[in-house]
Amino acid sequence: MFKFTLLHRDAGSEARRGFIETARGRIETPIFMPVGTQGTVKGMLPEALEEVGAQIILGNTYHLYLRPGHELIRRLGGLHRFMNWRRPILTDSGGYQVFSLSRLRSIDEEGVVFQSHLDGSRHLLTPELSIAVQEALGADIVMAFDECIPYPAERDYVIASSDRSSRWAQRSKAALQRGQRQAALFGIVQGGMFPELRARSAQQLQDVGFDGYALGGLALGEESALRYEIFASSLPLLPADRPRYIMGVGTPADLVEGVARGGDMFDCVMPTRNARNGVLFTTFGKLSIKQSRYREDSLPVDPNCGCYVCRHYSRAYLRHLYLANEILASVLNTHHNLHYYLRLMEGMREAVSQDRFAEFRNDFYRDQREGD
Amino acid sequence: MFKFTLLHRDAGSEARRGFIETARGRIETPIFMPVGTQGTVKGMLPEALEEVGAQIILGNTYHLYLRPGHELIRRLGGLHRFMNWRRPILTDSGGYQVFSLSRLRSIDEEGVVFQSHLDGSRHLLTPELSIAVQEALGADIVMAFDECIPYPAERDYVIASSDRSSRWAQRSKAALQRGQRQAALFGIVQGGMFPELRARSAQQLQDVGFDGYALGGLALGEESALRYEIFASSLPLLPADRPRYIMGVGTPADLVEGVARGGDMFDCVMPTRNARNGVLFTTFGKLSIKQSRYREDSLPVDPNCGCYVCRHYSRAYLRHLYLANEILASVLNTHHNLHYYLRLMEGMREAVSQDRFAEFRNDFYRDQREGD
Repeated sequence: MFKFTLLHRDAGSEARRGFIETARGRIETPIFMPVGTQGTVKGMLPEALEEVGAQIILGNTYHLYLRPGHELIRRLGGLHRFMNWRRPILTDSGGYQVFSLSRLRSIDEEGVVFQSHLDGSRHLLTPELSIAVQEALGADIVMAFDECIPYPAERDYVIASSDRSSRWAQRSKAALQRGQRQAALFGIVQGGMFPELRARSAQQLQDVGFDGYALGGLALGEESALRYEIFASSLPLLPADRPRYIMGVGTPADLVEGVARGGDMFDCVMPTRNARNGVLFTTFGKLSIKQSRYREDSLPVDPNCGCYVCRHYSRAYLRHLYLANEILASVLNTHHNLHYYLRLMEGMREAVSQDRFAEFRNDFYRDQREGD
Repeated sequence: MFKFTLLHRDAGSEARRGFIETARGRIETPIFMPVGTQGTVKGMLPEALEEVGAQIILGNTYHLYLRPGHELIRRLGGLHRFMNWRRPILTDSGGYQVFSLSRLRSIDEEGVVFQSHLDGSRHLLTPELSIAVQEALGADIVMAFDECIPYPAERDYVIASSDRSSRWAQRSKAALQRGQRQAALFGIVQGGMFPELRARSAQQLQDVGFDGYALGGLALGEESALRYEIFASSLPLLPADRPRYIMGVGTPADLVEGVARGGDMFDCVMPTRNARNGVLFTTFGKLSIKQSRYREDSLPVDPNCGCYVCRHYSRAYLRHLYLANEILASVLNTHHNLHYYLRLMEGMREAVSQDRFAEFRNDFYRDQREGD
C-alpha cells in the first residue's frame, strides 16, 4: 500500500502539501526524514523519535548490508522489529555510501565493485543486490540503485553515468517486481548540475515509471544558489501526483527553498551530526553550545522551542554535558535539533495550507538573521 | 527533614527493611544509588532513571567542584534543577576522587592539596570546603570529608588517618551546622581492614553524632571474603536506628552480602560502567554482549527481566549497536543494568518483609551459577 495525495498547492509558490499513506502509517508532506544509518538514529530512542514528530526515518543499505548484514536482519523479522521502530522506513540504495565511504571501486554496467570501509572486503553491488538488501530490511520505500555523480563532473561523464543510472533504475524496478513487491519504489534523477541532463534523466525515469521521484547528487559542495536552480528546473519536470524527494538536503534554508520549489521529502545528517558536535539549530540561527558565553546561561537553547530539552534544561547544563563529553550531550542535542527540523516542516505544511508560504519564508529569514 | 524508619528485620539474618523520608521524597531501604558523577547518570535521562526505579542518585563533589563549579550550579538553582532530577541526591565528600583521580597530593590536618585531573590546577580541599560544595549543590544527604585509605595499608597509617578523618568529620558537622543545615549528614567509618580500628572509628563518629553512618575504604581490591568480614564486624557497631551506607559497593553478590549483614544503602559505578563496556547483568549471571554467540540471538538480554530494553530489543540488536559503537548501546545497556540492580534491591526488600532472606540469597546464588 502506497498512495500519495496532494492536498493543496500554495498560492504564491510551488510549495505543496500532501500526505503519503503506507501500511505502516501516514506521512505528512513536506516531511524531513531523520537518518538512521546503522539501525538507529544516533542517540534517539524510538519513543523520542515519535516525541519529536518523526513520521518516517531513513535506513542505510550500505551500512546494514556490511554490518550486521541484511539476511541477519531479515531472519530477525526485518529492520522495523530489529530497531523497534513501527512507523515507515525509507532505505537508500547504497549508491551514495559506496562512492563516499568505500575504497577501490570500479563501475561498469553490471554494478559497482567496492571495498568495505570496515574490513576491506570486496563486494559487488548491483541494482538487483541493492533491491534484495532493501527488501530483506523490509523498507516501506525502496530507492533505485544509482551512481551518485561527484561534484563537479564533466558533461560527458554525467551523460554516461546518468544514462547508466536510468538503466539501473529499470533493473531495480524489475528486481523489485520479481519479489513480493510490498514496497514502493522511487527513481533517482541524476544529471549533475546540467538542467538539460536532469530533464533527460527525469524523462528516462518516467518512461520506466516509479511511485515517487528523487533528486540525487545534490548537497555535494555546490553553491546553494546552484542547488536551488536545480530544484527549480528539475522539480517541475516530475509528475505532480507523485512525491518528490530531495536527497541529502539540507540546511534549514535548504529545506525552505526546497519546499518553495515543490519538494516533498528531505533527509540529511545535518541535525543529528551537528548535534553531536554541539551545534544547535534555533529559530534565530545556529548556536554553538560550547561557547563560553553560555557558561552560566539559564535560558533554554531556544526560548521559542517547546521540545523536551528546552522545557527542562539550560544552555549552561548542555554546555557542561558537551564539555564533559557526556552521552546525554549527544542525546539531548540530537533531540532538540530533530525537533527543530520536524517543527520547521510542520510550520511549512501549515503555511502552505493557509496560502502564506511567502510570508513564512520571509519570517524564517528575518528570524534567522537575528541570530547572526 | 530526614527520618529513617526501620520497618522489619529479617528473622534469619541481619538484613533489614526500612525507609528514609526526605523533603524530596521517600527512599526504600535497602537501596542502590546510581552514580551521577558529572551531573548526569551516564546515558540515562531522568525519566529513564525513574522508570528503572531509582529513588536517589549520587553526585560527585570532586568532579562538580572542578567542572562546572559548585558556585555556578548554586547560582543556577542547585544540582537538582541543573540536571532535572527531582528526587533525592546524595553527594560524596570528594575524598575518594582526590585520592583516586588527582595528582601530587599532600595531606595534613587542614586538608588535602591536589592537582586537578582536568587542567593540573592546584586546590586545597578541606572538610569546610567539601561541605560548602555539597551545600551549594543542594544535596539531600551530605557526606563528611574523609581520607579514603588505600588497600593494603599499614596499621599505624590506618590509625593516624582514621583518627584524622574522625576529626574532619567533626569539622564537617560544625561546618554544616554553621550553614542552613537543610541536609542530612553521614559520617564515614574508616579503619582499613582492621576490625578493631573500624570499631574505634565507628565510636569516634557516634561520639560526634550523625544522621547516618557509612563504611568507607572498601571495594578497593581486597578479597570479597575480607570485605564481607568487615561488613559483619563493623555494621553491628553502628546505631540500629540510623541508615548504614556501604560506599562504592559493589557486585550483585556484594549487595546481597551487604544486605545480609545489615547494610541499607549502596552505590557503585559497576552497573553503569559495565554497561558501556557491553557487560550486562542478568538473573543468570553476567553476559558479554559482544560475543559472537549472540550474533543472531533473538532473545532479550534476560528473558526473566521486564525492563524496557528486554521488552523491545534482542541480544542481536544490542550486539550490533555495541560493535557499531552506537550511542544507544550505552543508553540501552545502562538502562538494563540499572533496572537489574534496582530490581535486585526490591527483591531483597520483599524477602526481608517476608522473613525469607536466606531463601532469596540461596536462590540468587543458584540462579547466578546457571549463567557460568
